[in-house]
Amino acid sequence: MEHNLKEFFDKTLKEVSLDCTVFGFHEGELKVLLLRWKGTDEWSLPGGHILLDESADDAANRILTQRTGLNDVYLQQFYTFGNVNRYVYHPEKELLQKLEVTFGKGFFEGIIFRRVVSIGYFALVEFAQVQPTPDWFTDECRWWSLADVPNLLFDHNEMIERALKALRQRTRNHPIGYNLLPEKFTMPELQRLYETILDRQFDRRNFQKLLMSYDILERLDEKRVGAANKSPYLYRFVKEKYEAAVLEGVSFSM
Amino acid sequence: MEHNLKEFFDKTLKEVSLDCTVFGFHEGELKVLLLRWKGTDEWSLPGGHILLDESADDAANRILTQRTGLNDVYLQQFYTFGNVNRYVYHPEKELLQKLEVTFGKGFFEGIIFRRVVSIGYFALVEFAQVQPTPDWFTDECRWWSLADVPNLLFDHNEMIERALKALRQRTRNHPIGYNLLPEKFTMPELQRLYETILDRQFDRRNFQKLLMSYDILERLDEKRVGAANKSPYLYRFVKEKYEAAVLEGVSFSM
Repeated sequence: MEHNLKEFFDKTLKEVSLDCTVFGFHEGELKVLLLRWKGTDEWSLPGGHILLDESADDAANRILTQRTGLNDVYLQQFYTFGNVNRYVYHPEKELLQKLEVTFGKGFFEGIIFRRVVSIGYFALVEFAQVQPTPDWFTDECRWWSLADVPNLLFDHNEMIERALKALRQRTRNHPIGYNLLPEKFTMPELQRLYETILDRQFDRRNFQKLLMSYDILERLDEKRVGAANKSPYLYRFVKEKYEAAVLEGVSFSM
Repeated sequence: MEHNLKEFFDKTLKEVSLDCTVFGFHEGELKVLLLRWKGTDEWSLPGGHILLDESADDAANRILTQRTGLNDVYLQQFYTFGNVNRYVYHPEKELLQKLEVTFGKGFFEGIIFRRVVSIGYFALVEFAQVQPTPDWFTDECRWWSLADVPNLLFDHNEMIERALKALRQRTRNHPIGYNLLPEKFTMPELQRLYETILDRQFDRRNFQKLLMSYDILERLDEKRVGAANKSPYLYRFVKEKYEAAVLEGVSFSM
């Protein structure tokens, strides 16, 4: 679809794009999915353009499916970036010269200096289920630990910051975890997820007590084999109750 | 500026607009500011286009100042509306015919059927300070009680609904009132504001206890003359403490 860029652009909104901060949770760390642009060491968030005949949400879902292989990803719009100096492609000469090595001289002509507003989404996905897939502009798609994220193209570092803030806000008002954890998990794993997102430590008993009070968890008759902690019981979310709690909201305050 | 529409549009983004839900509080009710389109009985939210050389936030501030006469209004972006069927002007023939009576035949030609994404803002203002001012497209600008809002143009009813939801969310996590109440107010007036926004009743003592625990209010040595309630003392927000609490967040849960 993107092979003929002009043809593709003719079918999209030109002044509006979207970008997705895709959060995963792995080995006690929050990860984000980044793309490396062809022929460069420059990284950016996954994103793209909205087709004239699809809504912004549909576009975000389409792009997320293309980059992760997943359908029905948890996706939330959190902020729209409308600064004056935002462009579809970064107007700095150096970057353009690098990109033209790959894409050919003059490839970006005519579309480079168009100001663009970008709708920011964040997605919560199960790390192990994702098949990171680059797009037509990029060579590589892979997970980065949040702490190691390099200087990104455009305003994408600011986007990740704001996405994290929105995720934290959500964590204080809604149950979280259904989209980020595997089906079965231990209480310490769930606690570690909350601690990682909110960047705080919680008391083990109080955490368990509060989470159980939401009435969204089911303790299974299974234990984590070989676990190095004191609560090796496995839990899972009761989907209907979890979804009801999402709609109603809960207060996570410890 | 807007007298030559084509000239004005040449200086703006064309696929992105913004719309503002301006909340005021008066006589125990939430109000919103609406505009009546020239020569019609059709109402819409205040809104407009983003100049190429201003950010979305600057545009929202500019438009708000034009419609209210106020500077430095509390303004929060809450959602971007990106459905497929959004247009700068409503593509329904009937409305266009009405508008063409005022604006002249063919006036909207060429710009009518452009799909547009709109960034939604809500504003909190002090009712008595606002001087409602129509724009070039409208004859009238006035407050409506939230309960009486008619069927609006475009998707503006949905916008108000979402704005209210965002305001409620904010009220649960942040102090509220500084922008909506006059400088001095009674505790029952503040309680009524919270009750109106959240559409619930609160116990008088518990409400006062919780609000005082935020340490953002100062009780004055003045009483409301002629007040028909039991707590006629006047209060005001201590600005620096209020602002610190806004940054840090508070939990309003009763």
